[in-house]
Amino acid sequence: MNNAVTRGTLVSRLQDALGATAVLGEASDTAGYTEDWRGRYRGEALCVVLPSSTAQVSDVVKLCAAAGVPILPQGGNTSLCGGAVPPAVGAAPVILNLARMRQIRDVDAANGSMVVEAGCILKTVQDTAAAAGRLYPVSLGAEGSCQIGGTLSTNAGGTSVLRYGNTRENVLGLEVVLADGTIWNGLRALRKDNTGIDLKQLFIGAEGTLGIITAAALKLHPLPTHHALAWFAPRDPAAAGQILGMFQNACGSRLSAFEIMNRHQLELVLANVPNRRNPLGGAHDWHVLVELGDTRDAEGLEAVLTETLGEAIERGLVEDAVIAANETQRADLWEVRHSVSEANKKAAVGLTTDCAVPVSSVPAFIDAATRAVQAIVPGLDIAVVGHMGDGNVHFIPMFSFDDWDALADSAAMGDAMRACVNDVAARLSGTFSAEHGVGQTGLPLMARYKSPAELALMHRVKAALDPNQLLNPGRLVP
Amino acid sequence: MNNAVTRGTLVSRLQDALGATAVLGEASDTAGYTEDWRGRYRGEALCVVLPSSTAQVSDVVKLCAAAGVPILPQGGNTSLCGGAVPPAVGAAPVILNLARMRQIRDVDAANGSMVVEAGCILKTVQDTAAAAGRLYPVSLGAEGSCQIGGTLSTNAGGTSVLRYGNTRENVLGLEVVLADGTIWNGLRALRKDNTGIDLKQLFIGAEGTLGIITAAALKLHPLPTHHALAWFAPRDPAAAGQILGMFQNACGSRLSAFEIMNRHQLELVLANVPNRRNPLGGAHDWHVLVELGDTRDAEGLEAVLTETLGEAIERGLVEDAVIAANETQRADLWEVRHSVSEANKKAAVGLTTDCAVPVSSVPAFIDAATRAVQAIVPGLDIAVVGHMGDGNVHFIPMFSFDDWDALADSAAMGDAMRACVNDVAARLSGTFSAEHGVGQTGLPLMARYKSPAELALMHRVKAALDPNQLLNPGRLVP
Repeated sequence: MNNAVTRGTLVSRLQDALGATAVLGEASDTAGYTEDWRGRYRGEALCVVLPSSTAQVSDVVKLCAAAGVPILPQGGNTSLCGGAVPPAVGAAPVILNLARMRQIRDVDAANGSMVVEAGCILKTVQDTAAAAGRLYPVSLGAEGSCQIGGTLSTNAGGTSVLRYGNTRENVLGLEVVLADGTIWNGLRALRKDNTGIDLKQLFIGAEGTLGIITAAALKLHPLPTHHALAWFAPRDPAAAGQILGMFQNACGSRLSAFEIMNRHQLELVLANVPNRRNPLGGAHDWHVLVELGDTRDAEGLEAVLTETLGEAIERGLVEDAVIAANETQRADLWEVRHSVSEANKKAAVGLTTDCAVPVSSVPAFIDAATRAVQAIVPGLDIAVVGHMGDGNVHFIPMFSFDDWDALADSAAMGDAMRACVNDVAARLSGTFSAEHGVGQTGLPLMARYKSPAELALMHRVKAALDPNQLLNPGRLVP
Repeated sequence: MNNAVTRGTLVSRLQDALGATAVLGEASDTAGYTEDWRGRYRGEALCVVLPSSTAQVSDVVKLCAAAGVPILPQGGNTSLCGGAVPPAVGAAPVILNLARMRQIRDVDAANGSMVVEAGCILKTVQDTAAAAGRLYPVSLGAEGSCQIGGTLSTNAGGTSVLRYGNTRENVLGLEVVLADGTIWNGLRALRKDNTGIDLKQLFIGAEGTLGIITAAALKLHPLPTHHALAWFAPRDPAAAGQILGMFQNACGSRLSAFEIMNRHQLELVLANVPNRRNPLGGAHDWHVLVELGDTRDAEGLEAVLTETLGEAIERGLVEDAVIAANETQRADLWEVRHSVSEANKKAAVGLTTDCAVPVSSVPAFIDAATRAVQAIVPGLDIAVVGHMGDGNVHFIPMFSFDDWDALADSAAMGDAMRACVNDVAARLSGTFSAEHGVGQTGLPLMARYKSPAELALMHRVKAALDPNQLLNPGRLVP
């Protein structure tokens, strides 16, 4: 089938193989695939292909390999760092979007597993698991539109990492189309399998550079049916860290969320999003949302929540606290947390970062990053919001729209601000990308923060699995 | 330093580099390193080196690479499949034993992490974590002598996988000496880090074929302080599976063990190990030990245990049950479970297997394997003991010593028996090695059960990381 295929004939050969409706060539049809959802990244594509089966994905890869045209695998195009769209310069790739591979192949509640195709929407996977009385725990803002293949390729994090780990910890097996079109069926749904190199780990978080994930065997958990939630004002981040330890000791794995934000972040939410109320009476510098979840025993949950918070108050670690009295209040408090992105977008220019440090270093990180940023712009506003239980803090220097526009070189200011925050994280043995991935934004940071040994190892793995640089060339490893 | 080193001068060059007491050359000194602890595997070594630091490991690797002499990395030499000793044929390697690298570099209770060197004994790691009020959950029979580097290189399983996962799930970062002597420092102790290929995953479970793990950042958990345990007789394995589901729904992650054994296995323990008593009054075909653990609330634990078992009895799934009334009774019941290896060794020739299948397929696996084995030897005794919650069943055809000696070709019988059990697992999408690894025993099985695509991928990764076949050549991937 690959005889004489060239860049010039590739589109028609793809149409022959998949049918005309599975190959989009006109710019008007491909716009939604070549530009990211926030409009910040845009690149040309030779065409967009929409295969419906693993065999078709393999056909596409073989044709592109024969024509020497690179492939950009794409899921729901919800990346926060330009990872899902083509680069602005360089050879236009074929975008291989997995959206038509949406079959749920198997649900095995007794084994705690399900097998799904890469194009399934995360929310569909969660709902299907719940209908079988099980939990697929990965949960994040884009869950209504992101595809499971994208969450696998970026090792997506989200709000349940503290309790259930990242996407990586919730995968049992994968099906992958390799760079030469070979289909590797590694869809084993086993809890234990020590037979050689654990190949699936290579493809999780590789952002499509080593193979194209077409299906996955996911790990399911017992479904928590009871929750208890509190909002409290810790004295400072160090006190929040101590209270996190108290909850871990008291509640073990019942602790399902421990989210922190600072006063400025809360004020931005209250000022910019309608119908959001301050959970506590007065004004406090720091805020924490803590949630417990369990498969039973709501009264016990609330008791341990009250007891642990009471102890923290006695020790002088907490200034004020409120416990959600019912599901409505619980939802309202989560809404405050979930309104952060909307608020920040409306309020100002926020220079979002995505650092993680050891949990024990979170107070030091916030402190040092604040000093570093304010050494550049004295008194600059900073929003802090983070998954404190994972050591993952979004530390966001904020410029008013006027101040931003008045800057002589705002791009340079953005780079300088992010660099000093990421440098602080690096000094504390942290990372510049906890959960967003590398994409286009992070590529220069890989060169800055990774050791030569580490980059060399990544290059070797890439060369071993994709020797002709067919899959997402130039991405992930600079 | 590597000028002119040859196989002939390697030992003296190693002595120059590490000091004479760190290089063992005499057969009398190396015997404990060249033979496995059960006396089943033995091979020659050029010498045994005992480096004390990562830099020394790097020096050894560079010298061996220059001399073209392969290296066999070794931990506590507790492998159950000949993984830790040299092959009986082929070039004698340098054994690089990590026993002198025993430093605990860091314990960070607030971050839930500790950094340990590869030679640390597993039990020491567990105890050090507990002293800091934290749990390192990996637990297995050899924990008093196996080294953490060995547990990492084999992705060790054990009795706590149901609750905490395999060793892989409890690693945050690694320090590894690569095949060219480069030291890769990947000792990040982060819960989230999405910056490129997750390199540590390559070395976990690779049995020393891709690099030499010298240190690890391990994940710690809140320390469970309360337990409740029951021993019960399910009607059959299918009923045991249903009850497992009931416990998962009722207890979530409080469920910390769900171990099954059959009547023959229990009888072997009672007949061959002193002071072991039948936990239940009468005789039953199947037995399960179930344990719950938590950071608080002993009464609540026992209540949910009693309640769930009561429901299973009502549904006719359980023939009899007993709940441990105190810590002594709990220890006694665990002793019955832990006496299995000793009993089987004394009682007969047991052809141990280590299959895992989807949890939902455990009853079908036991049924089909029993029929397959008894088709070869009608009425043959079979011991079944397994971690049912992980789908990991040790299915053990048992021959009396007399019957075994009377066989014309006992090796062929052993192979035939294991093959038919492993074939049943493969038909049920299972594996021939759930937790023991590949070692020497499993190498022919890799060729039998792995797809060409999978073996080819593993070879590519091996060639990329160890192009000169220096590290454990010929192991892991046939």
